[in-house]
Amino acid sequence: MITTLGPCKHLSPRSGFVSDDEKIPANIVRAPDRPDDPGPLFELAGPREHLYFDPPRVRAGIVTCGGLCPGLNNVIRSLVRELHGGYEVREVIGFRMGYGGLDPRNHHEPMVLVHSSVDDIHQQGGTILGTSRGPVDIDAAVENLIRRKIDMLFCIGGDGTQRGAYALYEACKARGHALAVVGVPKTIDNDVLYVDRTFGYLTALEEARHVIDAAHNEARSVVNGVALVKLMGRHAGFIAAGATIASQDVNFTLVPEVPFRLDGKGGFVAALTARVRDRGHAVVVVAEGAGQDLFPAEPRATDASGNVKLKDIGPFLAKAIAEGFAAENLPLTLRYFDPGYQIRSTPANCEDAVLCDMFARQAVHAAMAGKTGMVVGLLHGTFIHVPTSLILSGAKQLDTDGLFWHSVLAANQQPDRFG
Amino acid sequence: MITTLGPCKHLSPRSGFVSDDEKIPANIVRAPDRPDDPGPLFELAGPREHLYFDPPRVRAGIVTCGGLCPGLNNVIRSLVRELHGGYEVREVIGFRMGYGGLDPRNHHEPMVLVHSSVDDIHQQGGTILGTSRGPVDIDAAVENLIRRKIDMLFCIGGDGTQRGAYALYEACKARGHALAVVGVPKTIDNDVLYVDRTFGYLTALEEARHVIDAAHNEARSVVNGVALVKLMGRHAGFIAAGATIASQDVNFTLVPEVPFRLDGKGGFVAALTARVRDRGHAVVVVAEGAGQDLFPAEPRATDASGNVKLKDIGPFLAKAIAEGFAAENLPLTLRYFDPGYQIRSTPANCEDAVLCDMFARQAVHAAMAGKTGMVVGLLHGTFIHVPTSLILSGAKQLDTDGLFWHSVLAANQQPDRFG
Amino acid sequence: MITTLGPCKHLSPRSGFVSDDEKIPANIVRAPDRPDDPGPLFELAGPREHLYFDPPRVRAGIVTCGGLCPGLNNVIRSLVRELHGGYEVREVIGFRMGYGGLDPRNHHEPMVLVHSSVDDIHQQGGTILGTSRGPVDIDAAVENLIRRKIDMLFCIGGDGTQRGAYALYEACKARGHALAVVGVPKTIDNDVLYVDRTFGYLTALEEARHVIDAAHNEARSVVNGVALVKLMGRHAGFIAAGATIASQDVNFTLVPEVPFRLDGKGGFVAALTARVRDRGHAVVVVAEGAGQDLFPAEPRATDASGNVKLKDIGPFLAKAIAEGFAAENLPLTLRYFDPGYQIRSTPANCEDAVLCDMFARQAVHAAMAGKTGMVVGLLHGTFIHVPTSLILSGAKQLDTDGLFWHSVLAANQQPDRFG
Amino acid sequence: MITTLGPCKHLSPRSGFVSDDEKIPANIVRAPDRPDDPGPLFELAGPREHLYFDPPRVRAGIVTCGGLCPGLNNVIRSLVRELHGGYEVREVIGFRMGYGGLDPRNHHEPMVLVHSSVDDIHQQGGTILGTSRGPVDIDAAVENLIRRKIDMLFCIGGDGTQRGAYALYEACKARGHALAVVGVPKTIDNDVLYVDRTFGYLTALEEARHVIDAAHNEARSVVNGVALVKLMGRHAGFIAAGATIASQDVNFTLVPEVPFRLDGKGGFVAALTARVRDRGHAVVVVAEGAGQDLFPAEPRATDASGNVKLKDIGPFLAKAIAEGFAAENLPLTLRYFDPGYQIRSTPANCEDAVLCDMFARQAVHAAMAGKTGMVVGLLHGTFIHVPTSLILSGAKQLDTDGLFWHSVLAANQQPDRFG
Repeated sequence: MITTLGPCKHLSPRSGFVSDDEKIPANIVRAPDRPDDPGPLFELAGPREHLYFDPPRVRAGIVTCGGLCPGLNNVIRSLVRELHGGYEVREVIGFRMGYGGLDPRNHHEPMVLVHSSVDDIHQQGGTILGTSRGPVDIDAAVENLIRRKIDMLFCIGGDGTQRGAYALYEACKARGHALAVVGVPKTIDNDVLYVDRTFGYLTALEEARHVIDAAHNEARSVVNGVALVKLMGRHAGFIAAGATIASQDVNFTLVPEVPFRLDGKGGFVAALTARVRDRGHAVVVVAEGAGQDLFPAEPRATDASGNVKLKDIGPFLAKAIAEGFAAENLPLTLRYFDPGYQIRSTPANCEDAVLCDMFARQAVHAAMAGKTGMVVGLLHGTFIHVPTSLILSGAKQLDTDGLFWHSVLAANQQPDRFG
Repeated sequence: MITTLGPCKHLSPRSGFVSDDEKIPANIVRAPDRPDDPGPLFELAGPREHLYFDPPRVRAGIVTCGGLCPGLNNVIRSLVRELHGGYEVREVIGFRMGYGGLDPRNHHEPMVLVHSSVDDIHQQGGTILGTSRGPVDIDAAVENLIRRKIDMLFCIGGDGTQRGAYALYEACKARGHALAVVGVPKTIDNDVLYVDRTFGYLTALEEARHVIDAAHNEARSVVNGVALVKLMGRHAGFIAAGATIASQDVNFTLVPEVPFRLDGKGGFVAALTARVRDRGHAVVVVAEGAGQDLFPAEPRATDASGNVKLKDIGPFLAKAIAEGFAAENLPLTLRYFDPGYQIRSTPANCEDAVLCDMFARQAVHAAMAGKTGMVVGLLHGTFIHVPTSLILSGAKQLDTDGLFWHSVLAANQQPDRFG
Repeated sequence: MITTLGPCKHLSPRSGFVSDDEKIPANIVRAPDRPDDPGPLFELAGPREHLYFDPPRVRAGIVTCGGLCPGLNNVIRSLVRELHGGYEVREVIGFRMGYGGLDPRNHHEPMVLVHSSVDDIHQQGGTILGTSRGPVDIDAAVENLIRRKIDMLFCIGGDGTQRGAYALYEACKARGHALAVVGVPKTIDNDVLYVDRTFGYLTALEEARHVIDAAHNEARSVVNGVALVKLMGRHAGFIAAGATIASQDVNFTLVPEVPFRLDGKGGFVAALTARVRDRGHAVVVVAEGAGQDLFPAEPRATDASGNVKLKDIGPFLAKAIAEGFAAENLPLTLRYFDPGYQIRSTPANCEDAVLCDMFARQAVHAAMAGKTGMVVGLLHGTFIHVPTSLILSGAKQLDTDGLFWHSVLAANQQPDRFG
Repeated sequence: MITTLGPCKHLSPRSGFVSDDEKIPANIVRAPDRPDDPGPLFELAGPREHLYFDPPRVRAGIVTCGGLCPGLNNVIRSLVRELHGGYEVREVIGFRMGYGGLDPRNHHEPMVLVHSSVDDIHQQGGTILGTSRGPVDIDAAVENLIRRKIDMLFCIGGDGTQRGAYALYEACKARGHALAVVGVPKTIDNDVLYVDRTFGYLTALEEARHVIDAAHNEARSVVNGVALVKLMGRHAGFIAAGATIASQDVNFTLVPEVPFRLDGKGGFVAALTARVRDRGHAVVVVAEGAGQDLFPAEPRATDASGNVKLKDIGPFLAKAIAEGFAAENLPLTLRYFDPGYQIRSTPANCEDAVLCDMFARQAVHAAMAGKTGMVVGLLHGTFIHVPTSLILSGAKQLDTDGLFWHSVLAANQQPDRFG
């Protein structure tokens, strides 16, 4: 159930309306031996006929948080264009450098965003607003939002960002300021519940394949070449998996969802040395969140965003591989590729550009109707409204019994399990 | 309801099975004021536990028909790999040059497809099997299929191809030969019912945007520059629409779903000259099937595939634009771009590569279970089995009241209608 | 011998000077049986210690003329940056829409070019100044240049442009106005004397190869596929030749330097049908200026730039091919590619970007030293000053006895001559 | 003076011959106040009329050594094609895994290279022959070459490779076996004397710019973002310099030719912090061989090829930057990019493809004429024969007083010197 700031008394200047009563269920698969359990129902996103805000009086704010992801500028651009062009909102403000920019003490002066200031930005990676990790100082931010008379805030970011966004809404409400907070989910890892595909993911695949192509060329041109490519994927291996299927040149794909043993018969290193003995080279892709259980169980630090700092599986695996080959007296030419920042800064490809545009415009429609404490989702191919609490209730992971992971195993021919 | 050749008595060598009883409905939107009408239910695609065929005895055939589309080689490759690697089928035959290759009188000797013959083909556009337009000679083809003891035929192609595929199944049945015919829907236009997205479409967007970028650069560098880009889209404007959203540099998008008037106040030409007077240049994208009603209503020829031959809207529109500018004494520098074949021959991008792989593997699973007269579909993000008759019952078009087309109009700022 | 406006009395604010006395010869090959004939000697380009103009008082103008070419914006940007950054020139004016922009009656208001107005332009194809074909109206332009107190004019363009540039200098001189006119040679065809490689040529090769790849995929996927690709090259086949070597997938390369017969034994059509009979497909690349002698010898029209309008060899050849196949009763699937405008509008690749930057900066150095009636050249890998009259005295063509053309014939395996 | 195995008694089956008497001088600049010193004269490369070897009896070998470089497969392909196609040589053998493959004890069985085995290899990065670092065991290799009756050996590699090549020739001669050894110079660093541009360099620029674009996007999207990109360049900064000019987004370019001080007023760190204070971000490109004097002067190890192992300037600089910012209490978001292997494994771009083809074919012509102890060079735009001893007599570096480095300083606006 989506929270709304209040009754919608203003008529929309747009057309093609969607009703709050149209809904889709989380679960659409039916089977005779199972009770029909639709799970949560989500209202459809899209323009509403009746608005909570009077468009020409709206002051909107935009903020981008966390790590870079292809498409951030596209989202900013389409938010600005829909606000200005679709609703004739007069003031749109871009807060700079993530949540830090909401706090005036950081001296990141906000940008006024007009039509021309976003003209070509979708052709560039990164975010013109800047970004940072780290939580929002609720009091300072709320004070600032109220002082600047911001009516709606679009928060483009991941888990922490959406959690902070909801806290902002609640604190504003406590102070009697009606702030619509609408999130656009951002994670290059594609691991958000109720979002079929987050923007940036497909662009990341392209760039990852580009690097895997190089890694493959390198591996097969040297004596016992092993190319190890670390890709994004803190809790879910979608990028590693998708790049494996797209490339068809990866021989081992290690993801967080499938724990693996390094040593011993049936372990990863034994499989790798066997492959190299047999074929002379190998390409290994590892998601950054894979194999975390291989590190000593010590208290883990967290980063500024509150995420547990992952141990770096890349160099760890490289070392294990080198030791494994040495133990077998097998020469090894190991090449390590860590293209993370390169991938994150790439401009959006076409499908991501379309996705960004559609996410952004649905976010504006929702905010105009006074929806708050929600993010825009994309379920079964349909844009929806998702309560922030629901989207934060878990995370999407690879279904290792599903067709997608089957395609990975068919492509790389690795065993179901190592060890 | 999917036709099956007979009872499934063989055990699958695979795992991760899907049951025929799991289904998803065509319609998932629920609204309180409407009765819940799920529409047709579709069984889920995926590996079956019980097979009609005994895998090691299977002889499979593959044929690609109609115009080129990014991803054809990916589909061929994954069919071969799933047959050989997933089921250990021993004989896979590639019929050459479309349906013409089923008829021995055309002397297109089929290729035996083994693991190594498809190794790198996914990195290339086109189809290693070759393709052609034109119907299948049922009698000759059936004779040949029976003689070659082909058990299953994978038909990669559009409407006409799937229609022919079904006819082949029926004719074989009449002759007492159990042929599983499974289609993989192929159309760069993305206009197939019960298929969220056909392979090749996203790659086409990338290549189309590449050409639109050039067209935009050209148009804005010359005096009153108008760049006219003809894109694919016989009956549906998905490519023109998607490229418009992705590029954000298109000013007019003409698609089959939205008829337009050329002349007079409110017509397209008046809008174009107004834009050029105001901004000095314009980019126009036209789908090949747009504006067909502007041509004289005469009996239309059909091509070898039985498709009505479209009139060529590109040069027609170029002429109309030139005349319109001349009538207003407005200088014009017109550049015409017709990148159709260039787009069709591009290798698949990552998402299309993934899509091709998954379509192909589900096609193999279906055929092994003896399903026939069907194509693999993709509905609400889920791979399904669709009876061929149902997929041929209509075509997908742009919903001009929907969010996607709204994004197009927001990007190009063109009026809802011309005239 | 380079014309100079007068004595150089101002000291340069720069360093790393080159002397007017340093020269390189046109001909560097020595052979014992030949007298050593160096041909013309050219002074080296680069910064001069003594300047004719007092930099802070200079008013500079820039104009781009003729067809688009990758790198135009790079040249504009580096001219502006060298003028502002290297010499602290205060006023730089961009005349718009080619020579037409020098004539105030055309109402193309010039742009004032400052550091920030050229910031990102090198990432885009086209020219921000606009361009057009057509001669300069000397009287109107000179009047305008004098009125605007323009001291130096950078003319980026081909033959006609440089000819006009020289006329401007002479007319200014007759009116007592010291105008330094320095040309930057621009032709995508790479056919300028004393210029090893014109900017845009290498980018054109990349884009041409991209289209040839598609053409090759198309040709080999259809029955008797012939892909015909028309590329730039009015009088010289450098693009067709370079793309052939780079691609290695072209079977026939037709250039202006090598006349060919279409019909009869030994003719092009016979060679093409033989290839298709043998291999099933062929890729043909034709430069736009090839085969002009195959058209009826009638008086030829000229375009606005005064260039003889070429007959369109592309459709002509397509027709001849179709007729040739028909005459032999050989089925044919012909695909025609005409990517000219697409190639011309591409942003510069790295090597062209470097070339543009270096051409532009040497042009500024030359103008500051009061050199006029000259263009910047690039001979034996060295930037030089070339009198405009000398650069217009002929054109560079493929040496059909040389190593480059030998590489073409080795790649495509075509006979030395057709007919 | 090029060494020749003996008199040329066989007639060439080719045409378009070049004479040994045609020569170009190393130095072509003339100045009145300097005596005309042409320096060494080099004979032109190209097909010779008279050959030392009888082509149909030739057995040729090819070996690729050292690190990967874009274009290796193009060179292999054109060697094979020129040998088979141009001279009808019957046996071409590819030795595998660098010089290690010449020694049978390493069990790298050579490949027989025929026309079809190199068909599509130019489209892939890496080398199909494989490569390795490390010297050649002269005795074992010579024994093997004699046993296999190899007449000519094409050695594609850098300094150490060419040195080894010459030693092979001499040892064969001592054993009475006439081996023509012809080198194709390979270094991605572009630092070979008498070679205007080595193959792979331009492709490296493109890929480097691609990474710099990402680095720039990253740097300007975060708080005080510094992107540090390490590029190739052991002794010469051509890649760092060229990528700076092409990108125009680099702020600091550190190369081996220009020593720099890190600390203190006028040092690099002070300049960097000043830039970040002023502009909020910076992009730093460092060649791998830059700043080696900043490391303690201890005895240096050498790699298997005998090259001194460079200290890794990347992490060293990253640490220095972090300390410098910390010392000034300036927040820093540092991103480090190390794309070396990615760049080395990229397929050749068009200009490199052309270059590879032409280098390879001239190498074949030279070997056929019995030239030995030489490499193919490219001077003043002309392919030449260079004695191996001469090419090893030094290395090419950036001329820091020249026009190219001036363009770098104009692009990045860095001071001439740090400290």
